[in-house]
Amino acid sequence: MKTLALALALALCHFYQLSAQEHEHRSAQPLSYPDIEGYRSLKTDLHQHTVFSDGNVWPGIRVMEALRENLDVISLTEHLEYQPHKDDIPHPDRNRSYALALEEARDHELLIVHGSEITRSAPVGHSNAVFITDANPLLAEDAITAFKEAKKQGGFVFWNHPAWHAQSPQGTPILSDFQKERIANGELHGIEVINSVDYAEESLALALEHGLTIMGTSDIHGLIDWDYTEKGNHRPITLVFAREKSLEALKEALFDGRTVAIYNDLWVGREAFLLPLLQASIQVKSATYVPKTQVLKVVLENITSSDLLFENQMPYTFYSSSPVFRIPAMGSYTLQIKTLEALGSIRLRLKALGAFTAPRVQPVVEWEVEVP
Amino acid sequence: MKTLALALALALCHFYQLSAQEHEHRSAQPLSYPDIEGYRSLKTDLHQHTVFSDGNVWPGIRVMEALRENLDVISLTEHLEYQPHKDDIPHPDRNRSYALALEEARDHELLIVHGSEITRSAPVGHSNAVFITDANPLLAEDAITAFKEAKKQGGFVFWNHPAWHAQSPQGTPILSDFQKERIANGELHGIEVINSVDYAEESLALALEHGLTIMGTSDIHGLIDWDYTEKGNHRPITLVFAREKSLEALKEALFDGRTVAIYNDLWVGREAFLLPLLQASIQVKSATYVPKTQVLKVVLENITSSDLLFENQMPYTFYSSSPVFRIPAMGSYTLQIKTLEALGSIRLRLKALGAFTAPRVQPVVEWEVEVP
Amino acid sequence: MKTLALALALALCHFYQLSAQEHEHRSAQPLSYPDIEGYRSLKTDLHQHTVFSDGNVWPGIRVMEALRENLDVISLTEHLEYQPHKDDIPHPDRNRSYALALEEARDHELLIVHGSEITRSAPVGHSNAVFITDANPLLAEDAITAFKEAKKQGGFVFWNHPAWHAQSPQGTPILSDFQKERIANGELHGIEVINSVDYAEESLALALEHGLTIMGTSDIHGLIDWDYTEKGNHRPITLVFAREKSLEALKEALFDGRTVAIYNDLWVGREAFLLPLLQASIQVKSATYVPKTQVLKVVLENITSSDLLFENQMPYTFYSSSPVFRIPAMGSYTLQIKTLEALGSIRLRLKALGAFTAPRVQPVVEWEVEVP
Amino acid sequence: MKTLALALALALCHFYQLSAQEHEHRSAQPLSYPDIEGYRSLKTDLHQHTVFSDGNVWPGIRVMEALRENLDVISLTEHLEYQPHKDDIPHPDRNRSYALALEEARDHELLIVHGSEITRSAPVGHSNAVFITDANPLLAEDAITAFKEAKKQGGFVFWNHPAWHAQSPQGTPILSDFQKERIANGELHGIEVINSVDYAEESLALALEHGLTIMGTSDIHGLIDWDYTEKGNHRPITLVFAREKSLEALKEALFDGRTVAIYNDLWVGREAFLLPLLQASIQVKSATYVPKTQVLKVVLENITSSDLLFENQMPYTFYSSSPVFRIPAMGSYTLQIKTLEALGSIRLRLKALGAFTAPRVQPVVEWEVEVP
Repeated sequence: MKTLALALALALCHFYQLSAQEHEHRSAQPLSYPDIEGYRSLKTDLHQHTVFSDGNVWPGIRVMEALRENLDVISLTEHLEYQPHKDDIPHPDRNRSYALALEEARDHELLIVHGSEITRSAPVGHSNAVFITDANPLLAEDAITAFKEAKKQGGFVFWNHPAWHAQSPQGTPILSDFQKERIANGELHGIEVINSVDYAEESLALALEHGLTIMGTSDIHGLIDWDYTEKGNHRPITLVFAREKSLEALKEALFDGRTVAIYNDLWVGREAFLLPLLQASIQVKSATYVPKTQVLKVVLENITSSDLLFENQMPYTFYSSSPVFRIPAMGSYTLQIKTLEALGSIRLRLKALGAFTAPRVQPVVEWEVEVP
Repeated sequence: MKTLALALALALCHFYQLSAQEHEHRSAQPLSYPDIEGYRSLKTDLHQHTVFSDGNVWPGIRVMEALRENLDVISLTEHLEYQPHKDDIPHPDRNRSYALALEEARDHELLIVHGSEITRSAPVGHSNAVFITDANPLLAEDAITAFKEAKKQGGFVFWNHPAWHAQSPQGTPILSDFQKERIANGELHGIEVINSVDYAEESLALALEHGLTIMGTSDIHGLIDWDYTEKGNHRPITLVFAREKSLEALKEALFDGRTVAIYNDLWVGREAFLLPLLQASIQVKSATYVPKTQVLKVVLENITSSDLLFENQMPYTFYSSSPVFRIPAMGSYTLQIKTLEALGSIRLRLKALGAFTAPRVQPVVEWEVEVP
Repeated sequence: MKTLALALALALCHFYQLSAQEHEHRSAQPLSYPDIEGYRSLKTDLHQHTVFSDGNVWPGIRVMEALRENLDVISLTEHLEYQPHKDDIPHPDRNRSYALALEEARDHELLIVHGSEITRSAPVGHSNAVFITDANPLLAEDAITAFKEAKKQGGFVFWNHPAWHAQSPQGTPILSDFQKERIANGELHGIEVINSVDYAEESLALALEHGLTIMGTSDIHGLIDWDYTEKGNHRPITLVFAREKSLEALKEALFDGRTVAIYNDLWVGREAFLLPLLQASIQVKSATYVPKTQVLKVVLENITSSDLLFENQMPYTFYSSSPVFRIPAMGSYTLQIKTLEALGSIRLRLKALGAFTAPRVQPVVEWEVEVP
Repeated sequence: MKTLALALALALCHFYQLSAQEHEHRSAQPLSYPDIEGYRSLKTDLHQHTVFSDGNVWPGIRVMEALRENLDVISLTEHLEYQPHKDDIPHPDRNRSYALALEEARDHELLIVHGSEITRSAPVGHSNAVFITDANPLLAEDAITAFKEAKKQGGFVFWNHPAWHAQSPQGTPILSDFQKERIANGELHGIEVINSVDYAEESLALALEHGLTIMGTSDIHGLIDWDYTEKGNHRPITLVFAREKSLEALKEALFDGRTVAIYNDLWVGREAFLLPLLQASIQVKSATYVPKTQVLKVVLENITSSDLLFENQMPYTFYSSSPVFRIPAMGSYTLQIKTLEALGSIRLRLKALGAFTAPRVQPVVEWEVEVP
């Protein structure tokens, strides 16, 4: 039967070549965010599932989805302990999902991070360990052992959906002694403030209080298209500010807390990164006075995949716009500023209403604009 | 030649019947806003032009446009003094535009208000007198005479685009002695805070300071479709809160200052009317706890043609949403509120970020919600 | 009052400059059809109305509509005898509509043809005289006089909507002695086979039988956007094949019968022009064999604003397509032809199902394709 | 570890409930075709793959896709011999994919047919055996054995993509002695005339010549959305005319050849079924004369998910339409027929240009229409 299978494989690989070829053409919803001073802005989704735990698709689909959305990095973080398909996929080596993703991504720029999910009931809850070298030793009866092993491998570990109401009926994260110990031991480094469609302000507070890296992930089990795209959404991502596009630089950046979590027009991050990201996201295309007036037209361009919402914080008022205005993703908006006298330069001051540096704290961004 | 013309008229009226029949079917962008306690909310556009001054279309087109957008009331406010087509349309009776609109609207629910524009250079500027009975006497060399005549006829007069940079290069309204006198004499009653695409916060300040009625108008000269619809906008309107849908009730409401100016998602009005309008605009469809949790799902429905933007003002946080969120026009949005314990009722408190009761002052709206 | 009007005119011309500037940017539905060997393909709509007869808009709107749709030539053909707005627009000089259009089009490439409609009951019916020099003498009690005058001025005259059921209850054209005489006298040169949304095969038959030029026109009275664009249609046009883009060349082409009438995906014309137009409309972008097969992939591009429908007429069958297929406007389509052996060239043979050279006669078009 | 896994399973099944609940809401592209006299029209896709052969998704996704598209029946026809994922999914029981689909579809109306693909190089090629009872015995070194076994189990067997150019470089089916024998032995009953995006007229000819059932299938390996929906297409289906919606009735209908293969606007089937399907697909909503004319307005409604293309075959011509016209999927179209005299009834006669009863043979359909 071997020969037959081989012959068939050769004939059928036509189908595979086809799908590989289509990787390039079909990035239906490519995401775009600008780099900031000193860093590449890497678009990552580090929490995903496939049939190798309780997801519904082969790892190859996750790679294709990421290519369509123009992500830079993904991780397939299968539950080590929960394997509903294990009768069909015995899966003795828990690194298998990673290996298959790596193979599928071989001819592409997409980076694959080796990761796994450590899954327990409350109060331990769920955590992802990424940048591990071997998933198998993490499969331990005792969660403490799993975290120790992750640390031993140099893994970056983050707490998943701490506010998940299936584990915390109030929908708020409860920082137990377990987490406190892990943090104290250097075994827990990040926390999801956005998981799938859920943003928890309390998780952001924990991140800030305990110096945890701010994360946003899709936690996808089914299809990105069905859960996000066809509803008009992009999947949540963590934008990571790395010195270059490499796994090493990404890891360093995650340990250093250089992230912003993004879900559509919701941006959550430390001010040190959110502010420069917002500044880089809006480009001033032109600034000219309406002839014979003191009304300055400033054309702003949003070069990101998120709609951005702003509120005027300047002493000046606008000529033809509400003080609250939206610049659409990849679109532009013309402010008409009543400067009262002709100015040679102006400092735009706008509050980013959809961005948060702390619970209910929105950053005010400034742009220095020269009037030619 | 008379007989021929008559025969042709009969044959050709086929075309007219066709377009009349189509009035009913083609309201491509019908506007909808709810009534408030004690009042009908009338959708009005009281500043428009046709070929009878410097517009480009016959009055019939203005009626058809209004029917398509489901307006309740319009006024054709031709410049009395500026008649660029007068060589072709001698137009000795300045009531002619009104008469033609009235005829076209005959079989429809649309109300036509008799009006005219009194047009001068700064500092007098432009004003509309509506609810007049005869436009001809308003055509006077002296603007003061025109305003007196408008008052004599019982007209409601409002100041057009006081911030227009062609008359005020700073783009800010200058309240001259002329306007102060008119207000003192009871000859000027309202002010446009929104004219075409322009909103002036300073005009709102003037309205509040001097007790002027807040107005929003399209000031259309060309086609509503070209200037607004095809760019994804609705024309600006003044929502007037009248005891019933009648010209008398509308006039009373305007003199009483019961208005909100609306341009897409920008709403500007006195708190006494803006608050109940916002409350009526959002309907709570259901409120139920997610089983086994203290997370309350509240489904909100926006029954207006404006997207509405809100910011959470409650002590509670949300489960799956940014504290800043948008409820799309005619769409719904589900809040998930972490009430921490099971409540029998809750008071929603949201700031309406796109609505203004004074310059940069946004109202906080409350809804009492019973949990069944 | 003169001075006031002048001052106002200067202030208000701001509005006009704005609308003029916008001519360039807003061609929402620009039409595109290729030139053919030896000729420019001019996009014309030579049957339109304004307030100067029974239309609803000022001539300027017709110019703006044409610019938006990228037409090359228009004519405003007002009814000379039927003037429902004449109480308001006395209009003693029947050339006035033409003069205003000419003025509006001054800074644009759009050509304006001087024309008028001669309007009578059946059996005379309606006709347009274009390329006249003075409309006034055409206003005569006797239709014969009007046609004679049009001929005297060198006008090109075509019969409007001969199948109009208001004049011919069967919906079929009736060629009366009046028309026969006009044709015999060289006073009637063309016939509308498409008028607004109506195509009459019988009118096409008359055109072919009597050597009349085939015409398609919008006969617009209201707005192009409301009657056509918002229903997903383009207005009907006559494509005229002229030696250059000039009024002289256009006139010569019309008298010579070099036209194709187009309404969306319906094309009607003499084979001598329809065939080369179809050939030029589809461009072969590439032709390559699928590796290791005798299946030839031919990429066809439709460079017109019409969807084009074809049926395979080759001895070869297709690999992945119905033998009946549509190439979308401005889109492309890949045929996979089973040539059975590797060919160095192939002659595509397709019937154009939406094109007619005679009643129910569709042309078969051929393209010689080299296989590199 | 068992207890942990169980606890996790209970917690995580939240995700599964969610996806099950969403089955009902998300039928993004539901397909609709009418029943015909005496038969239910079942929408089937009997050729699909999952990770249990060379597909990329878990069987559950195939069920969800089918529910979204409102299919009545699917079959997962895994290659028995070609198992590229077998290192991960050892899959000793070849009925496993079927069992999982059955489980996923449990609470839905969707029927699952037990099937498998018998896969060989040319000349044997690929065939699907559906309505089998056990896939395992079909996995035999010798293809003849596999076909015998399928027959023994009462299976319905059809030849897959006979024109596939990877097996037949000319892109045409080659009926070998193998197929001839299978047909003669009653072991081969159907043939795909449409496989994925490919229609082969030669396969239709074979079906008619050898009495094979006409089939159309998606042969999907990746995602329906990526391969079809996002390109504006529906997946190919076989419409099967069964006495009721049951597996037994479906099987009887397939053996009896009661099918039409459908891919978007391409319909292929025997005249006995294609004609009544076309007749049922277009409903006459009204028929009234335009007042004072002999022009009959007939409103036709297309109640299918396919655009339908027709050509007039009546002696009468149309008033406002090309003789070639399209009735959009789920849309309507108004014919205006010049009947020359007032008729009490009329027989519509239209050729269905996108439907084929034999290579290049399009059926002419008739509808008897009463004029009230």
